[in-house]
Amino acid sequence: MLFYLLDLIGVAVFAVSGVLAASRSGLDLLGGFALAALTAIGGGTLRDVLLNRHPIFWIRDARYLLVILIAAALTMIYIVFLPPPGNSLLMADALGLALFAISGAQIAESAGLSPLIVVLMGAMTGTAGGMLRDVMSARVPLIFTQDLYATAAIAGIVVYLLLQKLSTPRSLAVGVGVVVILGVRVMAVVFGMHLPRLHALH
Amino acid sequence: MLFYLLDLIGVAVFAVSGVLAASRSGLDLLGGFALAALTAIGGGTLRDVLLNRHPIFWIRDARYLLVILIAAALTMIYIVFLPPPGNSLLMADALGLALFAISGAQIAESAGLSPLIVVLMGAMTGTAGGMLRDVMSARVPLIFTQDLYATAAIAGIVVYLLLQKLSTPRSLAVGVGVVVILGVRVMAVVFGMHLPRLHALH
Amino acid sequence: MLFYLLDLIGVAVFAVSGVLAASRSGLDLLGGFALAALTAIGGGTLRDVLLNRHPIFWIRDARYLLVILIAAALTMIYIVFLPPPGNSLLMADALGLALFAISGAQIAESAGLSPLIVVLMGAMTGTAGGMLRDVMSARVPLIFTQDLYATAAIAGIVVYLLLQKLSTPRSLAVGVGVVVILGVRVMAVVFGMHLPRLHALH
Repeated sequence: MLFYLLDLIGVAVFAVSGVLAASRSGLDLLGGFALAALTAIGGGTLRDVLLNRHPIFWIRDARYLLVILIAAALTMIYIVFLPPPGNSLLMADALGLALFAISGAQIAESAGLSPLIVVLMGAMTGTAGGMLRDVMSARVPLIFTQDLYATAAIAGIVVYLLLQKLSTPRSLAVGVGVVVILGVRVMAVVFGMHLPRLHALH
Repeated sequence: MLFYLLDLIGVAVFAVSGVLAASRSGLDLLGGFALAALTAIGGGTLRDVLLNRHPIFWIRDARYLLVILIAAALTMIYIVFLPPPGNSLLMADALGLALFAISGAQIAESAGLSPLIVVLMGAMTGTAGGMLRDVMSARVPLIFTQDLYATAAIAGIVVYLLLQKLSTPRSLAVGVGVVVILGVRVMAVVFGMHLPRLHALH
Repeated sequence: MLFYLLDLIGVAVFAVSGVLAASRSGLDLLGGFALAALTAIGGGTLRDVLLNRHPIFWIRDARYLLVILIAAALTMIYIVFLPPPGNSLLMADALGLALFAISGAQIAESAGLSPLIVVLMGAMTGTAGGMLRDVMSARVPLIFTQDLYATAAIAGIVVYLLLQKLSTPRSLAVGVGVVVILGVRVMAVVFGMHLPRLHALH
């Protein structure tokens, strides 16, 4: 139930981020819906295909597509009348990243997979939709702006897994994990934090 | 049977469009075959993976790859001797889009999925191969030229679904759906029709 | 067993090539690991998804991810102290291509698929990881530099299949296939060999 809600919220905020990106790139109305849908279902679809979970979440449960349609339509109405707050794309993206990373990790965990794979699967679930959105709207993927994007996801998943180890109740572990990802990501953007670069060759 | 023929023709015309795109991008002989194959099997492969239909169509039935090889080879021979007609890439692409969109919708429909998902699955099946072709040959994807690309697919699928509701015979509904997609797409290119853009932010 | 070893070595060298590409593109530490993992598991993941082999190889067996982590870490340590040899990315890529192309072909073959599909599946398995790496690190994909990239893979797979037909022991056929791919690819780079281009239109 908690997990289902997280997934729905993640889908909604990624849909918002898709519309914002489509608007910036000058796409049309349908392009907005298409990018909203791709961003919102990209990560979870990859997760379900890799873990062989069929039917895929948005095929099994049409509510996901409805949520995307509504979230996208509301965002479009909003941006026609008001300019979106400056960092709205970054914030919606960070929340989607956090929710999907933890939900992807949870599903991999409940499939009995090893921690290393849980981390990788969570990171892929969290980042795939946004990466798809950025490639499709011809922007440099946020994941490559190097402000601790995948790093934030991995940090939150590791915290989530450690809390579980310490018998923290799952809902608390989920909450802390999401907050860690959001916090790391937002601080990274605000303060321009990044990991050391690999030694630049030639 | 009808469905099988549609699929084979869709595969052939997308193979032709792949060779035309490869030629424009200066790829070599094998690049031509590779792009033909990617374009022709991309959409259907995505459809089969998402719907968990295994073996995937071109693995189950080697005739698809044979059709691709033959269509690609004939196109190569043709373009060595004669310049392809100006809009040949656009036309082959529009026909492939129409055939795959309807076939993707049909398969989703016969799996008992809801109309919203049928439309999305059809649109993805129709557009994925061409998008892959355009990304691989480093061109701006036709889907983003904004001349009603995915819109055309969605319009045709909706007409196809409505005709079915009205108990139109399936083969007639398929035909009308294909014609609607082709018609919308061709008119959009000819007359430069497009949907309203999202209000440009920034 | 032989097959397992080939796969592990292929994963390791592709991980090395991922780190080298990440370093050249100025990615950070985690970007290096991410690109190593994507390159190393991309081709095999595509192979397993298309052939419906679940759990996917790196989910079934955590050793693959461990090998990637170790290979990536060693490469990072190396390049901090010493400049990598000039063609190290090309060489690691060529070896990964060779090993994955043959392993992809082997798996398709043992699934009883037709030769045409075996060749296509092998070529896709060999090239997908490197293509993903190049797209993600914003470089022109090696596959499009036109120095017989996919061609090398196809040549080696065909030789491998022919040797099997002639009742050559499998391990010998595998070895020869790998050597053919490596040889063709390296010679193509050294001597700038390429297939004839498709007639450039307009």
